[in-house]
Amino acid sequence: MAAFPDVPKIKYEGPESTNPLAYRHYNPDEMVEGKSMRDHLRFAVCYWHTFRGTGSDPFGPGCAIRPWEDGTDSLEMALKRVDVAFEFMEKLGVPYYCFHDRDVAPEGATLAESNKNLDAVAAKLKEAQARTGIKLLWGTANLFSNKRFVHGASTSCNADVFAYSAAQVKKALEVTKELGGENYVFWGGREGYMTLWNTDLKRELDHLAKFFHMAVDYKKKIGFTGPFLIEPKPHEPTSHQYDFDCANSLAFLRGAGLEKEFKFNVETNHATLARHTMGHELAYASANGMLGSIDANRGDLLLGWDTDQFPTDLYLTAQVMLIVLEQGGIGAGGMNFDAKVRRDSFEPVDLFHAHIGGMDAFAHGLKIAAAVRKDGVLRDFVKQRYASWDSGIGAAIERGETNFETLEAYMLKKGEADKNVSGRQELIENVLNRYLR
Amino acid sequence: MAAFPDVPKIKYEGPESTNPLAYRHYNPDEMVEGKSMRDHLRFAVCYWHTFRGTGSDPFGPGCAIRPWEDGTDSLEMALKRVDVAFEFMEKLGVPYYCFHDRDVAPEGATLAESNKNLDAVAAKLKEAQARTGIKLLWGTANLFSNKRFVHGASTSCNADVFAYSAAQVKKALEVTKELGGENYVFWGGREGYMTLWNTDLKRELDHLAKFFHMAVDYKKKIGFTGPFLIEPKPHEPTSHQYDFDCANSLAFLRGAGLEKEFKFNVETNHATLARHTMGHELAYASANGMLGSIDANRGDLLLGWDTDQFPTDLYLTAQVMLIVLEQGGIGAGGMNFDAKVRRDSFEPVDLFHAHIGGMDAFAHGLKIAAAVRKDGVLRDFVKQRYASWDSGIGAAIERGETNFETLEAYMLKKGEADKNVSGRQELIENVLNRYLR
Amino acid sequence: MAAFPDVPKIKYEGPESTNPLAYRHYNPDEMVEGKSMRDHLRFAVCYWHTFRGTGSDPFGPGCAIRPWEDGTDSLEMALKRVDVAFEFMEKLGVPYYCFHDRDVAPEGATLAESNKNLDAVAAKLKEAQARTGIKLLWGTANLFSNKRFVHGASTSCNADVFAYSAAQVKKALEVTKELGGENYVFWGGREGYMTLWNTDLKRELDHLAKFFHMAVDYKKKIGFTGPFLIEPKPHEPTSHQYDFDCANSLAFLRGAGLEKEFKFNVETNHATLARHTMGHELAYASANGMLGSIDANRGDLLLGWDTDQFPTDLYLTAQVMLIVLEQGGIGAGGMNFDAKVRRDSFEPVDLFHAHIGGMDAFAHGLKIAAAVRKDGVLRDFVKQRYASWDSGIGAAIERGETNFETLEAYMLKKGEADKNVSGRQELIENVLNRYLR
Amino acid sequence: MAAFPDVPKIKYEGPESTNPLAYRHYNPDEMVEGKSMRDHLRFAVCYWHTFRGTGSDPFGPGCAIRPWEDGTDSLEMALKRVDVAFEFMEKLGVPYYCFHDRDVAPEGATLAESNKNLDAVAAKLKEAQARTGIKLLWGTANLFSNKRFVHGASTSCNADVFAYSAAQVKKALEVTKELGGENYVFWGGREGYMTLWNTDLKRELDHLAKFFHMAVDYKKKIGFTGPFLIEPKPHEPTSHQYDFDCANSLAFLRGAGLEKEFKFNVETNHATLARHTMGHELAYASANGMLGSIDANRGDLLLGWDTDQFPTDLYLTAQVMLIVLEQGGIGAGGMNFDAKVRRDSFEPVDLFHAHIGGMDAFAHGLKIAAAVRKDGVLRDFVKQRYASWDSGIGAAIERGETNFETLEAYMLKKGEADKNVSGRQELIENVLNRYLR
Ligand SMILES: [Co+2]
Ligand SMILES: [Co+2]
Ligand SMILES: [Co+2]
Ligand SMILES: [Co+2]
Ligand SMILES: [Co+2]
Ligand SMILES: [Co+2]
Ligand SMILES: [Co+2]
Ligand SMILES: [Co+2]
Repeated sequence: MAAFPDVPKIKYEGPESTNPLAYRHYNPDEMVEGKSMRDHLRFAVCYWHTFRGTGSDPFGPGCAIRPWEDGTDSLEMALKRVDVAFEFMEKLGVPYYCFHDRDVAPEGATLAESNKNLDAVAAKLKEAQARTGIKLLWGTANLFSNKRFVHGASTSCNADVFAYSAAQVKKALEVTKELGGENYVFWGGREGYMTLWNTDLKRELDHLAKFFHMAVDYKKKIGFTGPFLIEPKPHEPTSHQYDFDCANSLAFLRGAGLEKEFKFNVETNHATLARHTMGHELAYASANGMLGSIDANRGDLLLGWDTDQFPTDLYLTAQVMLIVLEQGGIGAGGMNFDAKVRRDSFEPVDLFHAHIGGMDAFAHGLKIAAAVRKDGVLRDFVKQRYASWDSGIGAAIERGETNFETLEAYMLKKGEADKNVSGRQELIENVLNRYLR
Repeated sequence: MAAFPDVPKIKYEGPESTNPLAYRHYNPDEMVEGKSMRDHLRFAVCYWHTFRGTGSDPFGPGCAIRPWEDGTDSLEMALKRVDVAFEFMEKLGVPYYCFHDRDVAPEGATLAESNKNLDAVAAKLKEAQARTGIKLLWGTANLFSNKRFVHGASTSCNADVFAYSAAQVKKALEVTKELGGENYVFWGGREGYMTLWNTDLKRELDHLAKFFHMAVDYKKKIGFTGPFLIEPKPHEPTSHQYDFDCANSLAFLRGAGLEKEFKFNVETNHATLARHTMGHELAYASANGMLGSIDANRGDLLLGWDTDQFPTDLYLTAQVMLIVLEQGGIGAGGMNFDAKVRRDSFEPVDLFHAHIGGMDAFAHGLKIAAAVRKDGVLRDFVKQRYASWDSGIGAAIERGETNFETLEAYMLKKGEADKNVSGRQELIENVLNRYLR
Repeated sequence: MAAFPDVPKIKYEGPESTNPLAYRHYNPDEMVEGKSMRDHLRFAVCYWHTFRGTGSDPFGPGCAIRPWEDGTDSLEMALKRVDVAFEFMEKLGVPYYCFHDRDVAPEGATLAESNKNLDAVAAKLKEAQARTGIKLLWGTANLFSNKRFVHGASTSCNADVFAYSAAQVKKALEVTKELGGENYVFWGGREGYMTLWNTDLKRELDHLAKFFHMAVDYKKKIGFTGPFLIEPKPHEPTSHQYDFDCANSLAFLRGAGLEKEFKFNVETNHATLARHTMGHELAYASANGMLGSIDANRGDLLLGWDTDQFPTDLYLTAQVMLIVLEQGGIGAGGMNFDAKVRRDSFEPVDLFHAHIGGMDAFAHGLKIAAAVRKDGVLRDFVKQRYASWDSGIGAAIERGETNFETLEAYMLKKGEADKNVSGRQELIENVLNRYLR
Repeated sequence: MAAFPDVPKIKYEGPESTNPLAYRHYNPDEMVEGKSMRDHLRFAVCYWHTFRGTGSDPFGPGCAIRPWEDGTDSLEMALKRVDVAFEFMEKLGVPYYCFHDRDVAPEGATLAESNKNLDAVAAKLKEAQARTGIKLLWGTANLFSNKRFVHGASTSCNADVFAYSAAQVKKALEVTKELGGENYVFWGGREGYMTLWNTDLKRELDHLAKFFHMAVDYKKKIGFTGPFLIEPKPHEPTSHQYDFDCANSLAFLRGAGLEKEFKFNVETNHATLARHTMGHELAYASANGMLGSIDANRGDLLLGWDTDQFPTDLYLTAQVMLIVLEQGGIGAGGMNFDAKVRRDSFEPVDLFHAHIGGMDAFAHGLKIAAAVRKDGVLRDFVKQRYASWDSGIGAAIERGETNFETLEAYMLKKGEADKNVSGRQELIENVLNRYLR
């Protein structure tokens, strides 16, 4: 029996369509810069928000209408839910999905039972993948919901919790490999602190490094070849999350000698909670060779918590896709909608509206980005802006031929630097608006 | 002729004093944990805010009453101002001061002239230091005020500006060495970007790394032995400052192979603008062996710009001093009041009130921190909280004797982790209040 | 059987005590400015956080250990919980408590059943009040948890929800009166909007006004004589809450002709989420004759959601009590700990630590405030600062004897205004620190 | 001699144009909903940022290249600057400008001299207006730059400063009237406080009310018929500005009996600094009949100060114009570009790029808003969402025929409210994106 009986397969109808259950821009086989939209965007649906979200918030329990749910967190329901998920994803036409271990299968009374539950659901997921062709973009382990993680997982003050987390990640990694997952993600959950006063920061960070090293060792041992991705977030649920932002996480990885083993899964709402634009986090990660995947959502910059809204702002999606195109694509990563419908969008069809809008906004953003690149106006402007580095003293500096003494001599002779030219921010912003007709 | 004729030398009068021009807590020779307050705190007055601040803001020009100023930025005035500064510092009884090159001496028409001006003032500063015993905590170069730095200094798109900056830092470093400066500081100024759209982030960061390498080379060449300190700040004046916070700067240093050559000068207001507590930034820097010095001020957490207010909150100063004591002292660094009187505190005597209050708050904070340490309640609590790491599975993990497989086996057998115990944040906060009678 | 068998009645032991289960400052019968601490502070425990809080957050379910709970939301459990609550409050020695209707009694299948449940619990609460002498500071209705309130209560787009809310408030008001409640509070819950795009702002605000008018009418009809209090909050759960801050709420009340019928219940964390200091909200409310009661908690200014932490900052509590003393007391209101223990403070005894710390911080703050007032330094300074308004042109302006023409004539003759004097913020902050030994 | 010799008159060239010195959307005579774009938008250039802005910031002096400036604040330069301004505005083709008294004419040694300077420049402005047809949208007085306003103007603790402010506003009002100004604006400047500790909030607010009453009296006396507009701003330069946001200002006006004499001039960047969307502030002002004019700029939501950037976001401009169209137009107000070029956009031509971009973004936004209104999708959705209020119990409530008792009876009988329907935020956001091709 269908979970979404009234929703047909979502089709591309073009920009003029006013059918809310159609794509206006996402046309999977349309070629952009020699690659299909499908392969550029690699959209993924997240299991947690889309299939496990209830609409609960700190001020009230769930209000989402999900007729297929029986109100239990049983294994039976978990298996039935797989059908709902794949019906949804097939109708949407997305190539990927992502999950945490505890989203897809219920936690048991013991670790062994939890693992057994996970195996049972994984078997069904595998069948569904085979049947539909939908693939696993990444898996991860939920190391934050169960009360054992109240003080963190690998950074818990309780050593047993570190051990438990290791066992859980081991299993999640195995299941991810079994399902052909193309990446494995670490989101910090409760890795951080509520108050510095009761926290041994250094010891906790040392444990975190040890944990990641063990994960890398095990990954190599079992031959999991997908990238490991850290997903930074600055605050929430803890007061300070250890993976604060890309730079913070990079400092940690470099300090632990792990920077070659990880990349980042950058989320828009986490970027802005850290007071960075998403463009910044992406450009920073990319410049450091660390941009692995994207959690495609958006926050409300006037609010201070993670609203995980669906992305519809074309300025955002165009910038994201521009940076992705500049680095030659998102690689093994994708655009995962780590986004939830607003609490008051509680009907099943809202899940479709939300994803359709996000996919269309990214497809449109991709087309804008390609057009900007084709015109070359922005690239030429930036290239010209740094022209002084392409010859003369600039080139000499870049070639490593100067030092403080030679540069002082150069400048004492010259007396004053060449004149600057305007940065032209307003002009550039106007140029960008040309692409939004 | 005295600049502050009505202000006597500020003396310690004890906690009961209500004399606003006396110390209630700062008693330089009083011993705390076997070291004098003077040596623990190593207070410094900053030349820029205290002797060059006018009270101007984006909504109006200066309103500070400074009877000794003649309204010019002449060399003559610069020399006269040295006397004012040392009168102030002597009356206050601080052991240190800090400056930017352009605070103490006027910029000339050419680099050569600027250097000459700086030499002239440095000679007088040297005399004043010798006469008074007041020393230079650190020097730095102002690479942001002059319009040549409109696009940054070493990260400017204009290569000449990089060269100019190199020459200017070279000179500032020489002068700092000449004056016995104990550290040299790099604050980013306009190193950052206003909009990502016109910016080649990677190229700019590569230039920044090159610049720091040149500085290190030159430091070694001339035998300047004090630490190099980066002072992070997240925003302002640029939209994104490259030295965003300690972690961001550490990622950069590690990426550039410079982490052994630099430490951090952590400023309270910059910490909070980056959405960190000052405690966090200090603990983070200290845990990474990177805490070099402190810009002792405070911000207004409800406002989004750098207010650089004088620090008077005892919760703040106690926490700062606790972290400093834990790491065995601030080393070659100090507590520099990078703080300015509010615009409406425009009378000369307000400079005294401001510094006295800041010094007393830190002296009081030091006494509180020492008392907390002596009692050991906090330390014992934290130690006990991590006790599971001191033996058994925790110790095995720390010794590197475990991996994902052994930990899984351990936990499969155990079934569930040992129970957690409360983090007791409320109790700890109550305990801290015991020290504020 | 006692819920807190190991916790004795909490007693005052004085500032030197290191007993964590004793008061160091709260000495209920101690007289301050001629009134007992008990009567100054009028502490209240809130039923929702303290007896219904589970420690759940958006990232995990509850983890609080509450041995007396049977895991149900049954009427039986609700009745049993009354005993726990009164045991806790008696041991703490607080004179008041506060509740929402749905905290104390479970929602039934119909409104009638809900009302019946509430009556049953109210009867037991009444007995417990009589037995212990603990009184009800205020009651309120929970108009946000049940899914019917997903779009708001009196501002819902669903007219039936308005009607339901009216019925629910009617009952809550009756029960509050029955229990001798001294105030009745309106916190907006979901009165606000998630997105302006689907919202008829004006129509919703008109409904809100109508609702408040009906409430006032009914209050008068049944002879409830306590103040009606609005509790402002700017965001959360909605993107924009209609009762944003005191000023916003006051604009609304004045526009609806309701300003004489309501006062404000000001919460610290809501003040700071609105980018106001708590001092500001209190001073503003007080200056407008609208300060009715206080939700005594605190937020984390670096975080963007309502953490509702227990207040321990003496600068905060001293300022709160200073403003309360200046207006002659909190009247029918009180200091209600609308505060919750941190998620990782999950043991029953943490409830005691939290309240003891909050009460002691306020008692200490009261003593500081009284000392500041006794000394008169601050008051004298402020009085002197406005001295120009006490005679001459200032007094003439205040008396209404001037207009633009006479003032222009005065100033044309004078040419320039008299000189300003320093605002002395730094000195004042130093003076305040005198009271924190 | 032309100030902008290389810039021609800016013309409309249509959406396909890539000429940066042409309009792609602003076509003044194009009719939208039966009114010309010119009359819908009523664009104004602000004198302060555009002709007096130097690019100075707290970290460096001005760097703007303005070849026509002689570096003085003389009357002669002020008169010459009028020609520059009108050349700029004519080339741009804007119908309006705005000014503060001290932008257009220099402050003199006495009030009398300042008035004389203002008269001299006003005479020239009048001629230029007559010659070009460009009109004055509004005038205002700068009551914040001069050091006499360090503690505020009408809320200063110095009564003389109140008198001076009255004289200055009197004159500014007369000049505004003389020049045919269509509105008069009050922006708070330093009306607010730096610290509550030295502030008599109530007395200051009483003075502010008195000041506004005098202004209203004088306006009536001289027959100035344009609206008085308050421009709210939450912070900066003071810690708390009295005109915090529209709601706060409305509370004040209603308390002072002034709400019929004032409307609001709403600025985008001030809205967001107060943690409101611009849409909210406009909808709120409009719903209360208080939306008078708009300062059309934008802020950077990740930064905490007023960046006053030029508006180019079409989501913003479309929403602004939708609200303006819904209320039947902006009336006597307009779209004033209270916006400044970024510091690093320091060349004269950047002034053109900035204004062209802002005007085009608003013209495009107007076209989008009109299209949205024509389609009626949004309006129909909202109307349907509130349908329960158009009949039955909803209509009875709106007609005032119900009270708590009848509503309780209604709901006791019904048992539960009718089901809610989804708010459909995601769908609506998708629909809006249809208008951005
Ligand atoms: Co998120
Ligand atoms: Co995510
Ligand atoms: Co600073
Ligand atoms: Co600093
Ligand atoms: Co709260
Ligand atoms: Co509250
Ligand atoms: Co502004
Ligand atoms: Co403005």
